[in-house]
Order: sequence, then structure tokens, then C-alpha cells
Amino acid sequence: MSINKKKGILISLEGPEGAGKTTILQEILPHLEKNGAQVLTTREPGGIRIAESIREIILAPENTAIDGKTELLLFAAARRQHLNEKVLPALAAGKVVVIDRFIDSSVAYQGYARGIGVAETMAINDFATDGLLPDLTLYLDVATEIGLARVMTGDREINRLDLEAAEMHRKVRAGYQKIAAENPDRVKTIDAGQSISEVAEAAMTAITAKFPEIF
Amino acid sequence: MSINKKKGILISLEGPEGAGKTTILQEILPHLEKNGAQVLTTREPGGIRIAESIREIILAPENTAIDGKTELLLFAAARRQHLNEKVLPALAAGKVVVIDRFIDSSVAYQGYARGIGVAETMAINDFATDGLLPDLTLYLDVATEIGLARVMTGDREINRLDLEAAEMHRKVRAGYQKIAAENPDRVKTIDAGQSISEVAEAAMTAITAKFPEIF
Repeated sequence: MSINKKKGILISLEGPEGAGKTTILQEILPHLEKNGAQVLTTREPGGIRIAESIREIILAPENTAIDGKTELLLFAAARRQHLNEKVLPALAAGKVVVIDRFIDSSVAYQGYARGIGVAETMAINDFATDGLLPDLTLYLDVATEIGLARVMTGDREINRLDLEAAEMHRKVRAGYQKIAAENPDRVKTIDAGQSISEVAEAAMTAITAKFPEIF
Repeated sequence: MSINKKKGILISLEGPEGAGKTTILQEILPHLEKNGAQVLTTREPGGIRIAESIREIILAPENTAIDGKTELLLFAAARRQHLNEKVLPALAAGKVVVIDRFIDSSVAYQGYARGIGVAETMAINDFATDGLLPDLTLYLDVATEIGLARVMTGDREINRLDLEAAEMHRKVRAGYQKIAAENPDRVKTIDAGQSISEVAEAAMTAITAKFPEIF
């Protein structure tokens, strides 16, 4: 399937480890659905069988030898396949798709933090997505130490990226902050150091401000 | 590891399914080694654990939903990792590396046959290889029907790419022929419709002509 003009809305949730993306997505879902919108929630890397297989390679704790460019190419491959099989059909059907991580993750992690470069990262991603960008991106900003502490005391499995040095995670945050500053129309920053209900409320405020006719 | 100037020699073997690359590689190996050269033989996609995991995703017969661009990105990811972990260290140590498939496979299969485009395919590959090209490429040219008949009657397992329509395989061959025509210094075409010993002899003739001081 080629990536054609879509009818639905694509919202991405971004942020460093422990920002609370998964929790916030669950919190806001009932609010998104209450006015009758059809909502699909999904995540990257993964979301479909082939992309989940790619995710396993990327995140396996034993795969410490993975080079930054290899990582970027694998994320892009998973992204392409996930778009084709799941996201684009939903957008074509007019659904609201909320995706946990999208291109900004590649720019923040590989482009900025791994030093591959923003232009190079965007070029690979444009190839993978045929230039598709989210209509709205919610960036959950949290201090690196708070985010990492949440991951380490949380109940999800620790993966390879969690185990990188705190310095890497600080670079990821700085990268996200640059992305937000350079894309003010698309990317809205939310203080994710607040309580869950406060973050969810801020997320819904941003969404209704952007799409007042729907939510 | 960044991809720096190398000391060894990189030779790639290319050709459509059933061209006999694996057989010819085994035939010429003793000739390559007889003057004392240290030779490493390897293959793409694969050659190391992480790349073999990627290979499994690409070639699994059930993964018919894989999009052409996804496929190209996965091959590029496997290529990058294989270079970093295996090929570049061998080249840095002054070895002769003979690789079964490299970038021309991406150009022939994804660039030409799947219609993604040569420039787009080369751009992704340049990112993955930091611009590294083989010193010599042996293209084993064989009629599509003969190549496919060899695969179907041979003893290796049939994979997803083997099962594509003959029309696809004809486009792959046409792509390889264009690559050979446009890169006459690097790519030498060998008639792989001949007997194994004739093909192996032609391969060694091309190699000794290119590197007379070594072989």
C-alpha cells in the first residue's frame, strides 16, 4: 500500500523512558471515545507481528553490539510495516490513531542522542513513511532521573535501551526539547513530572485545542 | 565502529536465485588461499547472530505482507551490522573477504525489480555502509528459467523470495545486467549457464586479472 492522503487523525505520544506514555494513553482513551470517535491505540516499535519480531531484535538485552545506524534502520523498517498494515488502513477509515512513539523517537534517540544527525535520521524516516507526519504530537517531558527511577521501580520488563547510561537519556531529553522548540505547531510539551490526572488533563486540553470539532 | 579506510580486499558475488554463487564460492576458495592469502567467506543477509535474526524475518515464507521498502530497510540494517561486526574487522586485518550478496542485490531486487528506484536504494545503502563498495563484484548471469529450476530441484530450503513470480526474477536479472553495464570497472559478468568448473575458472580469471599481485 502506498501512503496516500488520509482521512483520520494521527496523534503521537513521545517522551523519554518513564515519562508515562502508556499510563496517560489509558487515561485519555475514554475521553477520546466519549463523543463517538473511533480510536485505535498502538505502539512502536511493534503493533503487528512482523514489527514485533523486529522489536524483539532491537530491545533484546543481549544485543549490545547493535550499531546506532543498524538500530535506526530497524526502527524505520518496523515503522514502515506498522504504517502499512495497521495505521494507514485505520486513517483511511477515518479513525483517530494514537501511537505510542513515532518519528520523533528516532530523531531524539538516534539523531540526537546517538549522534547520527537529524537530517540523516529524517531522510531515512521520510523514505520509510513517505513523509507522513502526525497531526499532533504530545511530548511528555520529565527530568531524566525521575523518568529512570519510574522505569526501574515499575512493573514492565527492563530492556536494552533502559540500561544505557543516564548521559544517553539526558541527550534524548535535550533532543526532544529541540524537536518541540522547532516544531511548535505540531509538538505540544506537557510537564510529565505532575500527577497522572494532571498530565492526562493537560493532554486532553492540547487535543481539544487542536481538534475542537471532534473532541 | 566507523567504516574507515580498509587494508584488505572485498569481493562480492552477485546473481539471481540459482546462479550458483554458493557452489562457485566453495570451488574458488582453495585457489584464493593457495598463495597464502587469508580469506574470509560470508553471506548476506546474515553472517552474524543479529543479522541472521533479521534474515529470518526477511525470508520467512509466512511474511508475505512485507512491503518492498520494509524489506530494503531490513536488508540495509543486516548489512550494516554484518559490516561492523565481521567484514570491517577482517578488512582491517588485511584479509580477502568474499561475500555472497552485497549492495547490488538491494539495487537489483528492491531498486529495480520492486520499483523502489536505484537512487533511493543507493541512498539507504550509502547510509548503511558509509559508502563502502566492493573492490570487485562477480555477477553470475543465468537465464531466469534455468536459475529457478536449479533452486526448485536443489537441496536448500525454499524461501519467500524464491516463491515470487518468474516476472519478478526476470526484472532482477535485467537489473543486474544494468548494474554491470553501468559499473564496468567494478562488476565482471560471468556466464553462469556453463558448467561449475567453467564458471569457477572464469571467476578466478577475473580475480587474478584484477589483483595480479595477490592471486
